Amino acid sequence: MKKAVILLSGGLDSTVALWVAINKGYELYTLSFKYGQKHDRELEAAKKISLKANSKEHKVISINMDSWGGSSLTDKKREVENGEINRNDIPDTYVPARNMIFLSLAASYAESINAQDIFIGVSEIDYSGYIDCRQSFITAMENAINMGTVMAVEKNRPLKIHTPFIDKTKAEEIITGVDLGAPLELTWSCYRGSKKPCGTCDSCLLRAKAFKEAGVTDYALKA
Amino acid sequence: MKKAVILLSGGLDSTVALWVAINKGYELYTLSFKYGQKHDRELEAAKKISLKANSKEHKVISINMDSWGGSSLTDKKREVENGEINRNDIPDTYVPARNMIFLSLAASYAESINAQDIFIGVSEIDYSGYIDCRQSFITAMENAINMGTVMAVEKNRPLKIHTPFIDKTKAEEIITGVDLGAPLELTWSCYRGSKKPCGTCDSCLLRAKAFKEAGVTDYALKA
Repeated sequence: MKKAVILLSGGLDSTVALWVAINKGYELYTLSFKYGQKHDRELEAAKKISLKANSKEHKVISINMDSWGGSSLTDKKREVENGEINRNDIPDTYVPARNMIFLSLAASYAESINAQDIFIGVSEIDYSGYIDCRQSFITAMENAINMGTVMAVEKNRPLKIHTPFIDKTKAEEIITGVDLGAPLELTWSCYRGSKKPCGTCDSCLLRAKAFKEAGVTDYALKA
Repeated sequence: MKKAVILLSGGLDSTVALWVAINKGYELYTLSFKYGQKHDRELEAAKKISLKANSKEHKVISINMDSWGGSSLTDKKREVENGEINRNDIPDTYVPARNMIFLSLAASYAESINAQDIFIGVSEIDYSGYIDCRQSFITAMENAINMGTVMAVEKNRPLKIHTPFIDKTKAEEIITGVDLGAPLELTWSCYRGSKKPCGTCDSCLLRAKAFKEAGVTDYALKA
């Protein structure tokens, strides 16, 4: 059985990506990060979702990236803004080099278990304006991984980064999730960590819009 | 004053790289990692060396990479081997994707302080057989950084990874260190964490050979 490492934040994108990996028949190794987010709601969701997916392993890596702040998600002095962000600006929630760090750690994990496949739920079409969600970056990162790991260079076992939603809208992704039976009701998208999603941050607004567009009920809001 | 992020393990290579950055007139931001090594001797050295260098900041990032072991440096079940390793084998001390993870975090730190320069003391000539010490990997990683950070893509401020010793032997590096006044006596190379360097692990043997070749006394051994 082929193994795959799946980056699992506990949000919509990564959860549906996990169900794509299930559908392709991989043995699942999920990877989540505690990187200085101000709340643990996503990580709690990731844990439940991993269990539901019957992951072989679920690793949580802690990194004190809040050491240098730079984002309203990790910098205790900065508030998460309300409302939709201007897609031409750098969002205040941008965490410098986050996906690069996550993919590096995914490559390390993959090499240690001899997996050649990594899944990440990024999209170029429908995203929060993060530069590290683009295919050009993912391709460059895959190349770096394949120049810097023993399994790729010396054992002729290159790694592949799968981006099943790179050219999909969030609504299309939700429809895929429903088709594959992904537990969308367990996912957490809100940037804030209250008991219920705030409904006013950019991530909540993007999610609501996508569910509406997909014509699907968001049962996470009814829990 | 231009800022540089310097990857500082507390060993010889990174310490001399730091003094190269000093010599080039950079404002210094040193970055060390607690990544599940079995001992803290290197990190204690890094702290002292940063102070000596008058670094503007010294950040220590903790990552529980021992979560998946894969190396005798982080896996508590594996012993560090004695003696020089066969340079054609993968050393037991290889930590999967370590430099990729460190460089990703260096890029994140650099972006958060708006620095365009990163220094890393790797060598292709005289090294422990680690795949991620080669220029081909460093170049691929620099490319990934420049595809995945806002400062590079949108602000036309690309990052550069400096590898001052990439084509140097460790003996040449030691001579450079002496010339620049680097505090070689404060550095720690031993893979084991006893009070004194063990003198029998691969890293101790490489170091002793290089000091001998350079005709320089290793005062770290006399401390």
